[in-house]
Order: sequence, then C-alpha cells, then structure tokens
Amino acid sequence: MKVENMSLHPLGTASAPVPELLCIFGTGDLGRSLGLRLLQSGYRVVYGSRRPNSCGPLPEGAQVTSHEAAAQLADLVFICVHREHYGFLETLAPHLQGKVLVDLSNNLKKGIYPEANAAYLQRLVPGAAVVKGLNTLSAWALQNGLLAGKQVYLCGNSAEAKQTVAEMATKLGLTVLDRGSLSAARELEDFPLQLFPEWRLPLCVAAGLLAFFYFYLLIRDVIYAYVEQGKDISFRIIVTLANKVFPIVSLIMLSLCYLPGVIAAFLQLYRGTKYRRFPDWLDRWMLCRKQMGLVALALAFLHAIYTFIIPLRYNVRHKLISLVVDEMKRNKTTPFYFDNTEAWGTDAFFALGILGFFLYVLLGLTSLPSVGGTLSWREFSFVQSKLGHLTLCICTAHGYLYGWDRFIRVSTYKWYTPPGYMLCLIVPSVVLVLKALILLPCVDRALTRIRQGWERTPPEPELGMNKATNL
Amino acid sequence: MKVENMSLHPLGTASAPVPELLCIFGTGDLGRSLGLRLLQSGYRVVYGSRRPNSCGPLPEGAQVTSHEAAAQLADLVFICVHREHYGFLETLAPHLQGKVLVDLSNNLKKGIYPEANAAYLQRLVPGAAVVKGLNTLSAWALQNGLLAGKQVYLCGNSAEAKQTVAEMATKLGLTVLDRGSLSAARELEDFPLQLFPEWRLPLCVAAGLLAFFYFYLLIRDVIYAYVEQGKDISFRIIVTLANKVFPIVSLIMLSLCYLPGVIAAFLQLYRGTKYRRFPDWLDRWMLCRKQMGLVALALAFLHAIYTFIIPLRYNVRHKLISLVVDEMKRNKTTPFYFDNTEAWGTDAFFALGILGFFLYVLLGLTSLPSVGGTLSWREFSFVQSKLGHLTLCICTAHGYLYGWDRFIRVSTYKWYTPPGYMLCLIVPSVVLVLKALILLPCVDRALTRIRQGWERTPPEPELGMNKATNL
Amino acid sequence: MKVENMSLHPLGTASAPVPELLCIFGTGDLGRSLGLRLLQSGYRVVYGSRRPNSCGPLPEGAQVTSHEAAAQLADLVFICVHREHYGFLETLAPHLQGKVLVDLSNNLKKGIYPEANAAYLQRLVPGAAVVKGLNTLSAWALQNGLLAGKQVYLCGNSAEAKQTVAEMATKLGLTVLDRGSLSAARELEDFPLQLFPEWRLPLCVAAGLLAFFYFYLLIRDVIYAYVEQGKDISFRIIVTLANKVFPIVSLIMLSLCYLPGVIAAFLQLYRGTKYRRFPDWLDRWMLCRKQMGLVALALAFLHAIYTFIIPLRYNVRHKLISLVVDEMKRNKTTPFYFDNTEAWGTDAFFALGILGFFLYVLLGLTSLPSVGGTLSWREFSFVQSKLGHLTLCICTAHGYLYGWDRFIRVSTYKWYTPPGYMLCLIVPSVVLVLKALILLPCVDRALTRIRQGWERTPPEPELGMNKATNL
Repeated sequence: MKVENMSLHPLGTASAPVPELLCIFGTGDLGRSLGLRLLQSGYRVVYGSRRPNSCGPLPEGAQVTSHEAAAQLADLVFICVHREHYGFLETLAPHLQGKVLVDLSNNLKKGIYPEANAAYLQRLVPGAAVVKGLNTLSAWALQNGLLAGKQVYLCGNSAEAKQTVAEMATKLGLTVLDRGSLSAARELEDFPLQLFPEWRLPLCVAAGLLAFFYFYLLIRDVIYAYVEQGKDISFRIIVTLANKVFPIVSLIMLSLCYLPGVIAAFLQLYRGTKYRRFPDWLDRWMLCRKQMGLVALALAFLHAIYTFIIPLRYNVRHKLISLVVDEMKRNKTTPFYFDNTEAWGTDAFFALGILGFFLYVLLGLTSLPSVGGTLSWREFSFVQSKLGHLTLCICTAHGYLYGWDRFIRVSTYKWYTPPGYMLCLIVPSVVLVLKALILLPCVDRALTRIRQGWERTPPEPELGMNKATNL
Repeated sequence: MKVENMSLHPLGTASAPVPELLCIFGTGDLGRSLGLRLLQSGYRVVYGSRRPNSCGPLPEGAQVTSHEAAAQLADLVFICVHREHYGFLETLAPHLQGKVLVDLSNNLKKGIYPEANAAYLQRLVPGAAVVKGLNTLSAWALQNGLLAGKQVYLCGNSAEAKQTVAEMATKLGLTVLDRGSLSAARELEDFPLQLFPEWRLPLCVAAGLLAFFYFYLLIRDVIYAYVEQGKDISFRIIVTLANKVFPIVSLIMLSLCYLPGVIAAFLQLYRGTKYRRFPDWLDRWMLCRKQMGLVALALAFLHAIYTFIIPLRYNVRHKLISLVVDEMKRNKTTPFYFDNTEAWGTDAFFALGILGFFLYVLLGLTSLPSVGGTLSWREFSFVQSKLGHLTLCICTAHGYLYGWDRFIRVSTYKWYTPPGYMLCLIVPSVVLVLKALILLPCVDRALTRIRQGWERTPPEPELGMNKATNL
Repeated sequence: MKVENMSLHPLGTASAPVPELLCIFGTGDLGRSLGLRLLQSGYRVVYGSRRPNSCGPLPEGAQVTSHEAAAQLADLVFICVHREHYGFLETLAPHLQGKVLVDLSNNLKKGIYPEANAAYLQRLVPGAAVVKGLNTLSAWALQNGLLAGKQVYLCGNSAEAKQTVAEMATKLGLTVLDRGSLSAARELEDFPLQLFPEWRLPLCVAAGLLAFFYFYLLIRDVIYAYVEQGKDISFRIIVTLANKVFPIVSLIMLSLCYLPGVIAAFLQLYRGTKYRRFPDWLDRWMLCRKQMGLVALALAFLHAIYTFIIPLRYNVRHKLISLVVDEMKRNKTTPFYFDNTEAWGTDAFFALGILGFFLYVLLGLTSLPSVGGTLSWREFSFVQSKLGHLTLCICTAHGYLYGWDRFIRVSTYKWYTPPGYMLCLIVPSVVLVLKALILLPCVDRALTRIRQGWERTPPEPELGMNKATNL
C-alpha cells in the first residue's frame, strides 16, 4: 500500500521515468559518439556548441544549444574539445561553478605541454570538480558499442565527482578503475599515446640478433665464396641468408623466453626463499617473455614460408637441372644411387621442423587474450611450461639434425668460424640442460617447498617480537 | 546500534537471505538454460508449463507448476515460448496484470508477421509491462556461462519495468543498453537474424572483381592459346588462373581499403573544415574497410597456398622434365647457363611476396576483437595506418616485380589487351601516390590543423549571435 | 534541502571520501597483486604479515602490520595463504569473530585433503563467515588488470557475507556467479586444477584413430613392400605415412563432428517430439563437437605443411631425377608425353584440398571466443552448419579424387585390404547422405515443426487436468 502511494506521488513518478540530463561540450567525432552512447544507455543529452544552428549531424534525440545554456541545464559536463580550444572555458567559469567536468582530451604527442590537460582545465575553472578519464575510449569504439567490459581509468580530486562519473561509466558497460587524485592525469593522458612499450625490448633483442647473424653469415657465405673461390653468389643475400637467419634468431628468442624462468628457479634455490625480490633486470626480462615468444613465432612463420617457396626459386631449379645433366653425362647405365640414410635424415629433419612449428602456433594461439582467458591456471601452466619446453626441445633437435654430420667436417669451419646453426644451438642447449636439472626429483621437491612459502632460514624471532608488540 | 536493530527486524532478516523468485514460461532449451543461469546467480526460479509433471529435465533447484500458479508467485515473467504458441497468454491475462513480461522470442525469418512479437504480446496482455530484450542470447551461451560483459538490448514502454530487467541482467553479468520504447522491438528481434550485413558490400565487390578478372584471363590465356596457337591448355582454369586472379583481386581490395581514407583527407583539405559530413557513399565505404581488408587477407592466404603447391602439380613437373630433356639434347658439353639477374629478380619477387603476406597476417591478427581491444589509440593507428600502407607498398612492389621486363615486350599484349597484373597495379599505385602527397609536410600540417578543429572560414558571427541571445 | 544538510553533516562528509579498508593475510604474489588491484579500485588495504617489517615489496599506499592488528581494522579479510599454513588462524579466531573471510586458496593437486580448504578454514574459525571465491584469478591477471568482465564464482553459508564480497568483486570489474553454500567449495577449488576436461574425449578418439591407421598403413605399405618385393622403404614411416594418416583422421574427425547433429535430428523425427532427452552418450558427444572440429583442423594444418614440404624431400627429388634419366635413356626423339586428364585430375585434387583447408581455417577462426561472440545467432548457425557441411563435402570430394581411378584397380588391394583413403571416406559419405536426406523439403518441414515445439502425440489431457486443478 505504501509503495503504491509513493508511486502516485508527483515527484516520485516524475523522477523515475525522466532520465538524467548530461551535457557535452564539443560536437566533433568524440562528442557525437559519446552522445549517441549516452542516449542509448537511457540518458538525455544536451550539446554545448559554438554554433548551435550549424554544428553538423548530431545523434537523434539530443538537444543542442550554446555552451552557457547547456552548462546550466546539467550537473555533469563532458569536455570533448581539443586542449587548444580550452580558452573559452575560462569565460564560462561562473556557469560551471560546482559542476563536474569530465576531461576526455588527449594530445597528439607526449610532453608538448608543461601541465596535464586536466590540470590546465582545473586551473581555468577552479570552482568545478574536474575528473580526468574515459580518454582511452575511441570515438569508433563508442559508436560501435565495443565498450562492454572495457576498462577505463579515472582520477580527480573530488571523491564524489569521481563516484558520479564512475556510476555513469558503469551504466555504459565500462569497468572503472580509480587512479587517485588529479596529479595522475598526465599518466592517464599518456595511455593512448603508448606505442608498444612492452614490445621494445624483445624487438630490440631480435633486431640486434638478426643484424649480427646476417652479417656473420654474409661474411661466411657470400664474401668467403667470392674471396676464396671467386664465385659471385650475391643473389643469395635476399632469400637464402634470410632463411638461415630467421630460424637461428627464432630459436634463440624462444630459448630466451624460457631462460629467465630457469634462472629464477636457481636463484630461489640458492637463496632458499621466495620472499626476496628478483634483480630488476630479471623482473623486466620475465615481464616480456610473452612478447619474446611471439617474436620467435613470427620469425618461425617467416622461416616456414621461405622454406615452402624453395623449390620455386630459380637457382634451386637450376641446380636440379644441372644435377640431372651431370648425372646423365657421368653415368648412363647403372641406376641413380639412393642413399637410405640421407632419406631418413632429411625426413626426420623436416618432421621435427613441422612438429615444432605446429607447437609454436599452438603456443601463439593460447597467448591470444580471448583464448588464454578461458584456460584454468593448470591448463595455462601446462601449455606455457610443458608444451613450451617441448617446443624448445623439438626445435633444438631440428637444429642438431640440420648440422647432422657436418659438425665434425673440417670444411664446415670456413675461416675457422663455426657456422650459424652451431652458434644458435648454444643457448637452447643450456636452457634445456638447466631445465632438466630442475626436473630432477630432489631439486624439484626443494623448489616446490620454497614456492609454497617454506624458507631455509626461518624468520621466527621477528614474528614473535611483533606479536609481543601487538599484545 | 540502529543497524543492528534493523537486522534483527523480522522483515529485514527475511528479505536479505531469501532471494527473489522469478518465473519462466516455457521449458525448452532457452527456458532451461536461462533458469540454470538465474539459479546460479542466486535467484529462485519457478517454471510455468503446459504439463508440469512431464516437461523433461529442468535445472536442479527450480520448481515447476502450471502457468497460472507460476505467474502468481513472481513479479517478473520470462516468456521463453515461440510466438506461434502465445495464444494461451490471452487467457492468462488476468493473472499477469501488473507483472513485468520479458519477451525473449525470436522468429525464424524477417518480416513473417505484421507486428513485432513483443507488440503482439503487449496486445494480448495489455495490463502487463512488456519488455523486449535478452533475445540475442543463445541457450548455448547461457548454459556455458559465456555472458560476462556481453551486451544486450532492452526496450519497453515502462521505465520501471526496464529498470527491473536491467538490474537482473546486470546481476547475470550482462551489459544492458536501453533502446527506447516498445516500438524498437522489431529492430531488436531482427538482430539475431542478421546475416553479415557489413560483409555484403566487400563480398559483392570481391565477387565482381573475381568474376571479371577470371573471364578476362580465361580469354587472354586459354582461349587465346586455343585460337592462335591451337593448344589445349584448358586444365589451367582450375589452378593457374585461380592463382592469378586471387592475388590480383587481393591487391585491389587492399588498396580499396585505403582509398576512402585518402579521399576523405582530400575532401577535408578542399572544404577546409572537418565539420561537414562526408557523402553517404564515402561513409558507407569507410565503415566496411575492415571487412575489405579481411577479404583481401583471405585471398592472399589462398594465393600463398596455391603458390606453395605449384611444384607438386603435374604440368609443372612435366615442364621441368621436358626442360631437362631439351637441355640434354641441345647441349651436351657446356654447363647449363646460370642467369644471375634472373636469380636476383625471382628471389626479390618471392621475398617481397613473403614479407607482404607476413604483414597482411599481422594486420589480420590485430583486427581480432580481443587483440585490437588491448591496443592503445596510437598503437591501433600505427598498425592500421603505417603498417597497412607499408603492406600495400610491398605488395604493389611484388606486383611490379612480377611484371619485371614484360611491361615493354610486345608479346605481353595479346590481342592488344594488357595482362591482369598490369590492371591490378593501377588502383594501388594511385592510392600510394595520393598518400605520398598527403605526407608532404605542408599538406600534412594543414590536414592536422583541420582535424584539430581549425576551419578556413571561421563561423564567428553566429557564435556571437548565440551568445547575445543567451545573455 | 535535506540532501544538502546531510552532506554538511560531519559523518556524511567523512564517510564519502574515506574509502573502505580491507585486510589481506599473506604477502606472496597473490596477496600483493590483489592489494594493488584493490588500491587501484579505490579501497584502502592493510596487510597482515608474519613479519610486518621484512615482508618484501608491497604495493604503494598499503599498510602492513601483524595479523591480529590487521584483522581488527577491517571487516573483510582475504586469506592469501597456502592451506598448509592455515594453523595460525586458529589462534587468531577470537579476533576474526564476525568477520567475513574470503578464502582464495588453491591446492596443487586434486583430492590431497579430505575436506575443502574453505571448509577447513570455517572449522578453524567457526565465528567468521567464510566465503570461498576469486580463487580462479591468477596473480598475473590481477596485476595486469585483465579482470574486466571475467567471471568468478562464490560460495558460502552466509548470504550477507557473499553479498559483501560480490559487491567488492563487481567494483573490481568482475562478474560474480553465486554457486550456493560452502559445500560447493571443493568444486570451486577444483576449477583451477582442471586440465582440458572437454578435450579428453576428442583427443582420445583422435589418438586411437591415428594409431590404428598408422599401423594399418605401416603393414600395407612398408611391410608389404619388404615382404612381397624385398624393398626397404622404411624411411617412409616418418613423413610419407604421417602425411597419409593425418588427412585420413582429420576427415573422420570432421565428419564425427557433424554426425551427432544428424543422429539427433533423426531421433527427433522418430520420436516426434523434442521434449524427450537424448541418450547420455549423444549428449556428451554433442558437447565436444567444437573440440573435435579443432582437432580435425590441427591435423589438416599438419597435412598442409607436410604437403608443402614434399618437393624438398630427398626421395622425391631422387625420384624426379631418376624419372628424367629413365626418360632420356628410353626416348630421345619424341617429346615427353603430356597427359591432359592427369593434369586436370591433379589440379582439381589440389584445388579442392586448398579450398577445403581454407574453409577449415575459417571455421576455426569463428570458434575463437572473441570472434564467435560477435556473431548473431543466424550468422553462427550459418557458419557452423552451412559452411561446416560444405567443408565436409569439399574435403570428402578431395578424398574421392585422391582415389581417382585406383578404386577399380586390383593392385590397390594389397593383401586384399582396402587402402586407407577408402576407409576414411566411409563415415563422411554416410554423414553427407544422411544430411542430404534431412534437407529434403518434406523431412525438413517436419523437423522444423518439431523443433518449434510441435509434438506428434499432443499431451492435451494433462494440460487440461492441471488447469482444472488450479482453477
């Protein structure tokens, strides 16, 4: 009965169906998309514009008026204007007194202004509560409704203002994270300007290794042939050398992906505790393992395609025809000799390569956010640790089989240098041997205990002391 | 103290632990999955069924009774019944007075009924508040808990009813978007019946280009050889022609993917403002760029596989053997001639193709929703704009190298027509030249200013006028 | 007016900006990451530690103190400690009276303890309200903010405690599902220990088929050649046999993926209703169709790479050279004969294989969670049903073309056994024929009616009876 009475009350009925009115300054792409989205989520929207009568197409259902009028209608104002045009807000300051201003602006480059856009805005309009946030959303994502579950950051000096904005963002389907006071605004403004920060180290390492091995093989192959044998095989630098360098660097990158885990395990064993922090370089290395693995996969992918294309190459076909012609001249009666060992060797080499590439791709697929996200903890660790080490093992065997019987031939060591595939087998072999050591039952048991919190030198005394202090 | 008092109050304690009871009409797949989900989210569920005693397996913990009894127990009723069976609801209307009815129904085809299912339901039960929504959820997704963060639409005439349903949906992990009154119900019912609407245009363009180039090459290659040389090379229409047509159309589709961006930039430069709307055709074109790129990737993928398979083909092996046999007959003493330029040319051609394909795949990967969603604005624009144009550049160079020295040979122009690869280089070359023009410092600066809101003809007067009006 | 009064009230202003304080026991990886996350979401955090003065790096802004002191400060305590160290909680029990304890612990293996960790915790601290949950989150995901929209489970005996935790989790961006009382704790603790449960059946079937066909072909190919012809072709067991077995099993797995759907349709037709449950084996089979399809795709991928590598193999090159040498010796004047039928046959065979593989990959892509999630119901059913059956059809045709004219040759049936590719065509052919039957207009119409709820034997009487009872 009471509830029914309430719903008959004029204020009650009015407040329930009439949705909140929000104001947007700026009728550009972002302003329009945001307005569309707010309307779809059940809000009413009023635009503040320089020229309310000719500001282009706006979402259906939105009002448009001057900045002053719009600001007076709503408590929450979205600033979808470039920082360069913030000037007019200073004259509007009296109208914005006590309002919540959401600064969605981004800059084109880092560090072109001494203060963050939001801090500048707060200085222009000191009487308003400025909240920086939602600036990681693109107009495109807003328009196409790709917000569900997306994470956005907020910061601001007023907790109530942040709360208001957070509730609005939640209604839009966003997940909100509070990053503290307005001093974090610069950090938030730098988010959309990031350019693959976690990819830099892996890409640098890969580029360095590629350059080194490319020049090393260039000297050993092309220049050696030119100097010692007077042959011009410079055409090799495009495909042949690339197809040697890519697998070499891919294998090294894959092993670098598993090396820090092994080092960390030995460090924990040595220290007898897991509670001491790893050195900085190791932490940074461990954080970019996924990217290292993906760079390795990309190089393996290139290696695979380069390999598939081999029989189509002019020099390969030329060599095959020369071989037949030579064979015909030399030997006209006995059948062409079939080397069974060679057949076994090359087939095993190819089979290992294919299997390794297959596992590589499998690892890459599980690193897709949407696939990895569906895996349980044990599944993820099974794939990334067990399957990963198996991949490394198979690819290393593929490398050893490539060497085959060439390891002991003197002709392999041109100018007394080892060939590239030998150099690239060092790191993976070390990683595999160390990993095998860790898997020994006695070592494994000690490590498991340490990872569950056991410590070789128990810190009992201090614990007692603290207890005493507290009691 | 006060809080504790309240929690001792019988009503308070009762309301906290006893969860809300919801009613579901229909015990089919959808009804069962929805019930399971509601139970998992902490609701109680009662089913209304034609035959409460033999309605098959229901989720554990749910009650089942007749439609009338179930409707009386709950305030919210889900209608998980096909529209064809809505008839019984008319007789139930008195029992549904004042209830919220959620219509989850879909049809098998568009436009088989004059009014939306939800509108029909509202007509049958005028005393209830009908809310259309959640109909985009499949029974399968409900059962397997794949709802987290998923977006659903609601519409209905009662704001309170929509609010109730929205809260329930939020508890299920869904993100709710309000689409307005019940008149939007038809639109919501058409969502699950969409069949790749945004793919239609790119697929039509691709199909048209494929058909055109296929017949063009059929005439130039197969029919020309038959008419002019009397040779039957009809076997080529399966693989050889396909492997010419796919790369041609792929390259054109990729350039069509970047052409609208270039056109838009020139249009903005010409108009001197970004505030005027693009023509409709350009808007529509820009909205399907992603799909165009993916179609281009699919064709490039087919081209790659067709190429890998070449050495296995009967006619290729036959040609190779014939070549050797001819070589043997002609020349028995001097070694088979090695053309260094040819080796460089083909190797460069293959290397560009491989690199282009690799970048193609990279672009495709970042267009996966889960990968693209983790990129910042600058990363996304780097990948789609810089890497995209680089891909186009490399693939165009791959095409030019294919032509090689054939551009100036007369024998290339059979029946006075240019070969396919020449035709396919036109659009990419135009796009690349226009893009290079835009990247000139002076043009780039003007464009950046325009995109930041600068206008060649400032609309000052109007702004002043508005201000005057408001003050 | 009243509202403004309240916000001026000292308690009101104080409560708004001071965020809630939560307590975390345990300063390991999980504890640290959870604390960081809570701080980012606007909570205050206090750690309870054995050694508050030397517990390693903690997130900035968190306090740390002894367990007792920390417990007294907060109402909600997260237990981020291994079950092995729960002992100290018993002595803390008086301090934890009336608190909500969230048990996030997991075990290393299933079934090593007689009771669930959460049940053990409840027994140690009977006065607290234990909530099991959030244990599926990894420290890594917490730290990197990969929580948005992720689903977590809760269980516990106190509805209020669960509500408190659910609200906290929602603020973190998680989607919460209530799994009932604390008796479900064991189930929740087993979640992170799952190892691909839904992949077991498909992988077992695939492994069984692979083993069978491998040995079957080993006997027919290698052993037959050794026994009957005295030839040693044992090198074939690495690549040649694998490249026969993979496509065979891939095709069978793909058809097994569509067989249950066909069986289900016939069962529904036979029973004349969709309301009777399928037999258990059919249900289980239908639930792992996606995994079966992905295993089939993996094998098809291996088959493709094995095929691309063929021309590089030693024995293939050897065969080619022998062929040329033989040709030269035999025939020196007439040109090498070109078999047009053979050219058509092999080209068609390859084209079908490529197209089939392309569709396979397309099916695999749409089964990615992030891609499949964006498809409407009709799009999903179009891809999985129409495209899926087309793929099966094309791959089966690829198999038939491989057989070509060998089906009727006597030499094909070594030791009176049919070759592998014949055996593998049986199941796909049966599935395609049955599917074609279902697509006949009369059968299709009956099936559609049944799936919309029509029944051959209407259960009217019971419905009437129920109505009578209720009225």
